[in-house]
Amino acid sequence: MKVGGKSFRSIWTDEVTGKVHIIDQTRLPFAFDTLALETRDAIAHAIRAMQVRGAPLIGVAAAFGVALAMREDGSDAALDESIAVLQATRPTAVNLAWALAKMKSHLSPLSPSARADAAWTHACKLADDDVATNEAIGDHGFGMLRALHDEFHRPINILTHCNAGWVATVDWGTALSCIYKAHEAGIPLHVWVDETRPRNQGLLTAWELREQGVPHTYIVDNAGGHMMQHGKVDVVLVGADRVSRTGDVANKIGTYLKALAAFDNGIPFYAALPVSTIDPMLNDALAEIEIEERSESEVRAVIGLQAENASNAAPVLILHPGTRVSNPGFDLTPSRLVTGIITERGVFTPAQLAASIGKK
Amino acid sequence: MKVGGKSFRSIWTDEVTGKVHIIDQTRLPFAFDTLALETRDAIAHAIRAMQVRGAPLIGVAAAFGVALAMREDGSDAALDESIAVLQATRPTAVNLAWALAKMKSHLSPLSPSARADAAWTHACKLADDDVATNEAIGDHGFGMLRALHDEFHRPINILTHCNAGWVATVDWGTALSCIYKAHEAGIPLHVWVDETRPRNQGLLTAWELREQGVPHTYIVDNAGGHMMQHGKVDVVLVGADRVSRTGDVANKIGTYLKALAAFDNGIPFYAALPVSTIDPMLNDALAEIEIEERSESEVRAVIGLQAENASNAAPVLILHPGTRVSNPGFDLTPSRLVTGIITERGVFTPAQLAASIGKK
Repeated sequence: MKVGGKSFRSIWTDEVTGKVHIIDQTRLPFAFDTLALETRDAIAHAIRAMQVRGAPLIGVAAAFGVALAMREDGSDAALDESIAVLQATRPTAVNLAWALAKMKSHLSPLSPSARADAAWTHACKLADDDVATNEAIGDHGFGMLRALHDEFHRPINILTHCNAGWVATVDWGTALSCIYKAHEAGIPLHVWVDETRPRNQGLLTAWELREQGVPHTYIVDNAGGHMMQHGKVDVVLVGADRVSRTGDVANKIGTYLKALAAFDNGIPFYAALPVSTIDPMLNDALAEIEIEERSESEVRAVIGLQAENASNAAPVLILHPGTRVSNPGFDLTPSRLVTGIITERGVFTPAQLAASIGKK
Repeated sequence: MKVGGKSFRSIWTDEVTGKVHIIDQTRLPFAFDTLALETRDAIAHAIRAMQVRGAPLIGVAAAFGVALAMREDGSDAALDESIAVLQATRPTAVNLAWALAKMKSHLSPLSPSARADAAWTHACKLADDDVATNEAIGDHGFGMLRALHDEFHRPINILTHCNAGWVATVDWGTALSCIYKAHEAGIPLHVWVDETRPRNQGLLTAWELREQGVPHTYIVDNAGGHMMQHGKVDVVLVGADRVSRTGDVANKIGTYLKALAAFDNGIPFYAALPVSTIDPMLNDALAEIEIEERSESEVRAVIGLQAENASNAAPVLILHPGTRVSNPGFDLTPSRLVTGIITERGVFTPAQLAASIGKK
């Protein structure tokens, strides 16, 4: 997508220098910096330091880490060690393990001397596959938004939570991919951007939408219910971290509250995600998904600029050191509140999902 | 209530010096400073600058402003001018107008020379009345919490939103008065404190609870629904800005989302408030209450300390100056989600309220 009018992916290669380029997401949205990475360890650091974030992007970055390692040493030992090092950067990231397993099964049968080129090509393919998947998600979600526009004949008001945007993927994003596709097609839209405390990923969403020229308004997480009560929201559209075969949606903490408000006000609620996010083994998501308790520091501090012309964002501490904090990272939206699941294969009701995709 | 182990009200008098003392609430919770005010204009400034905040407290402070003015000049002209100046400090505050009208009707019949003493005595009475009202609210709410404890035989987990505490009143508060009364009576409690963006009044609530020794945990506004889904909340207890005769509750933005989650999980939802908050003329609260759109700056900046040992809180800017913001101050919780309204006259279901208090 666009930054300053120029097209970017969140990770890309320079085929002349052989370097891997990323956007330093620790600096977003306060500054836009890119980094050129030349070694596996630089990739490992970028994942660990969250210079790259978002499950699909982390997986692709790790694949490029393997490719850079193979350029130095194509041996079995180097392959195994690189995969171990990269896996350890974010041990619980499912996509990371998935991408590394893909690289290993692709490279293991090859001779060491063939691995460098093959790894690079395969990492590029994983990146392109992610882009294609997200574009397809966007195309299906676009259909849903177009139908709303055909119904209301006015700009469609979408509420989104967290950042399900292109910087969390290689390009396009998931929930925001639907919005970008509709915006490109000329459907008039306005997006309510939830702040998404504690990490304020709404700032990333607002930055993305601003760069693409999509009209939007930033609101605190408390405000969405009020907006829905007053007819100011036509659809809630979010991403997902994990979806059960019956359509329960695990997503960023606070999603459940917006789904409740949508249901209470007769507003459709959609989650957009790649099919790989759907766990066909998951039946009772509320009982079976363990919700990660994240660092207290995310709640205790808020990052911003100390002056409008400041160049570096810095945290302020809002909490007394003696105050206890709880910081669950995700919550669970039960399928009874979910209108549809938007995937690269189409849009499914929870019942259709259970019938068509959930069974494997 | 207690600060550093010492008893305070949010406003008090020194009968020797004749000064009015307040807590400078602009510095809370990062610093605890008190101010001694000697003139009407000092009181007017304190209200305007939000050194005193909370509807009941503002009304009482204004009454003391009239009393200080009468000490200088007890004439009809001085009385009228003082009331006009004080009313203009927060033009939309209902309690401010109410307290000033009380002062005027009490003082007008008196001779100018008698007004200074009478005004002081009457302002003290308004303060004491507020304390008595809030204590009575607390006693009734305590009964509700004791009943929960009798049912569960374990610490009762209460979720609260915003600050309905003693610093928003002269003493005790409303929702927190119930908690203080139960805590004093030895009922084991734990309070989930909602952050309450954009102004983070949860910081005031956490400060109050810490000073009273009530166990509590601070959470972002997004987390409450998850806590309820996992059985970690026994009751939601909030204050209110305005209540309809049928029990619709207008309160700080985000309250509606917590009420929805409570209802979805079979958890009782109570609002605690003085009877004066109930508007017997209000029938359809959602249609009739106009929700104040507050300053964007509350959303754009977050106030905190730049280091743990910093002495002054300062804001950081989190939003791009070009990003649009909407900042509704309150939302409306429909009576169908309300278990009970706790007042100084007792606890009422919305139906009982409509029958007993709503009709005048």
